[in-house]
Amino acid sequence: MSLRFEIKARMGLARLGVVHTPHGSFDTPAFMPVATAGAMKGLTPQQVRETGSQIILNNAYHLFLRPGHKRVEAFGGSHRFMRWDGPILTDSGGFQAFSMAQIRDINEDGVTFRSFIDGSRVHLGPESSMEVQNALGADIIMAFDDCPPAQGTLDDASYKSRVIEANDRTARWLERCIAAHKKPSDQSLFGIVQGGTDPDLRRRSVESICHFGLPGFAIGGVAVGETTASIRETVTLTAPLLPADKPRYLMGVGYERDIWSAVLAGVDMFDCVLPTRNGRNASVFSRTGPLRLRNAKYAEDHSVIDSDCDCEACAGGFSRGYIRHLFQAGEILGPVLASIHNIRHFQRLLLDIRAAIRDNLPLPFERRWPVVTQEACEGTEGAEIDPT
Amino acid sequence: MSLRFEIKARMGLARLGVVHTPHGSFDTPAFMPVATAGAMKGLTPQQVRETGSQIILNNAYHLFLRPGHKRVEAFGGSHRFMRWDGPILTDSGGFQAFSMAQIRDINEDGVTFRSFIDGSRVHLGPESSMEVQNALGADIIMAFDDCPPAQGTLDDASYKSRVIEANDRTARWLERCIAAHKKPSDQSLFGIVQGGTDPDLRRRSVESICHFGLPGFAIGGVAVGETTASIRETVTLTAPLLPADKPRYLMGVGYERDIWSAVLAGVDMFDCVLPTRNGRNASVFSRTGPLRLRNAKYAEDHSVIDSDCDCEACAGGFSRGYIRHLFQAGEILGPVLASIHNIRHFQRLLLDIRAAIRDNLPLPFERRWPVVTQEACEGTEGAEIDPT
Repeated sequence: MSLRFEIKARMGLARLGVVHTPHGSFDTPAFMPVATAGAMKGLTPQQVRETGSQIILNNAYHLFLRPGHKRVEAFGGSHRFMRWDGPILTDSGGFQAFSMAQIRDINEDGVTFRSFIDGSRVHLGPESSMEVQNALGADIIMAFDDCPPAQGTLDDASYKSRVIEANDRTARWLERCIAAHKKPSDQSLFGIVQGGTDPDLRRRSVESICHFGLPGFAIGGVAVGETTASIRETVTLTAPLLPADKPRYLMGVGYERDIWSAVLAGVDMFDCVLPTRNGRNASVFSRTGPLRLRNAKYAEDHSVIDSDCDCEACAGGFSRGYIRHLFQAGEILGPVLASIHNIRHFQRLLLDIRAAIRDNLPLPFERRWPVVTQEACEGTEGAEIDPT
Repeated sequence: MSLRFEIKARMGLARLGVVHTPHGSFDTPAFMPVATAGAMKGLTPQQVRETGSQIILNNAYHLFLRPGHKRVEAFGGSHRFMRWDGPILTDSGGFQAFSMAQIRDINEDGVTFRSFIDGSRVHLGPESSMEVQNALGADIIMAFDDCPPAQGTLDDASYKSRVIEANDRTARWLERCIAAHKKPSDQSLFGIVQGGTDPDLRRRSVESICHFGLPGFAIGGVAVGETTASIRETVTLTAPLLPADKPRYLMGVGYERDIWSAVLAGVDMFDCVLPTRNGRNASVFSRTGPLRLRNAKYAEDHSVIDSDCDCEACAGGFSRGYIRHLFQAGEILGPVLASIHNIRHFQRLLLDIRAAIRDNLPLPFERRWPVVTQEACEGTEGAEIDPT
């Protein structure tokens, strides 16, 4: 087995642990920032490490399309290609193929879609996703799953039948992923539970996925457009059903409070593009809530983003007014500093969460971290949205 | 006097020295990378320092227009605004106003032009340039001079009369700059010699400028469109005429060989946007000549930009293929790594030059550094050209 999970402490359902991989260890609960195309925006791997990030995520979909998984493999895999020597997780490409691409066809074989780069016809399925992820060489790789659209885009009956279809297909595809996975001794394959917002379908998906003896399991199909309350209900229901001795990964979530409530339900791993995507658009997180630094009121603001923060931007004394100037002038140091701060903000949240579990002292969340929801951040993203 | 220049060694006309300023010292011959709008592209000040840069340049013109010199002053000046605690030099804004702007009017008062930001009518002259540079607070500030266009844009007689006008006006403006300069004990004002490509007019400009007892002098009006040979002739003629005990600064030059020949003529300071401008466009310098990393032939190139280089990009093992991928994918880490490398390339050239003077051993230039000219780099710059 290429992965070992040690649980060091518990507080209710929450767990403090360490995951050991072929490229080193990371503490859990863990936040993984997203290096979509093999780069964390303008940050060097050294700067990423200085944010306290121990494991990062690459998007198989992006690297598959450009520069191509075979080419990355020829460079020695993702680790050597991007000069990150710590643990890496790749997603399967399924979520991006379902959500970003102009889909041409979904069937039992997988998904056929148009490349966002050149419009060419591309196919991804369980076997090709494993081939791509085996070539990229991440320590943790994800099953290729069927991601149904969020409730609300379909009527109730259509939604339910689509989720049932996705559940069944995800289980069949997982079996094919396991068979196609060529490097189980180097790369740990995680299964993904679907089930949408329906508690019964979630339970059935857990049953169909978790009987495979995999090194970890993920909750998929959340944060695809539901309300914060609905995400929370689904996670609170699902996490405790996953094998207790394996890392549990909640995909694509989320804001500070969402992470905390998921940890309390027993989730161990998180990823989210918020730090870098918002950072690129001058939206920064702070202990007192998000700031949109392009706002004119920051032009003469001499204070740092968050006086409580120890990131390279805040500890370095870069003022809100200066960072606003960088964005106004189109200087790429703006997105660099904002992304450094935002990633560190999330890593500090996770440090607090891990300390709370270790000391068995629930985090005084409202005092120390803002209650931020999608709604509170609305409009923080500019026209330029990352294709993830 | 806010500036002290120590000459430590000589080799022919070349000098090895140290310039002491209120924000620390820098070794000469010195190369100053250009942080146009108060940022060195995506590099943090720490990364700039790690390239071996000891002094950087800000463009008064850009900071005057955005965010405004008064605002930068309210932040404590350029040093505190951009968190660079070493020496800074600001240009006067004149060169940019003459070369970039839609000029509305040039007369004895100065230049009236349209702002590149909002098209508004803006004026810069000797007094306002001093006001702007006093507010920015750089250690070395530049006289506001009249920069005539390059020969070739005018017939010979018109060119000569325009250069004579520029010479005379530059001398009158220098007197007004000296009178308007409010902080001579903190900021050292350098005079600028004009004279175009005419040896006699160069000599006359030196006479009219250098009798002012200023802490340093610059050679202006070169690299404004002349041939490499013409730049070299002008510099070789002019540099030895400048006061021997003051730092001599050749503005806006240039490629590796241009710098070396200017050092041999007695120049001490250089600035150029080439490292960052070319870096942003995937054009990188190396000991064997420039590489254009967007070229498909680098897609599978596992070697670093320059195996002989110790910069964060090369020593960090980032391959040409990876950096090319970053540019293809629009990842800002591409320009960051290319700029880091390019700045370090120039700082290593200056380290070699300083060692050659110290040891009185002329640099085996052809063996160690490429003979690169404007022509050899043609086409390395993309459509997006920095407004400097």
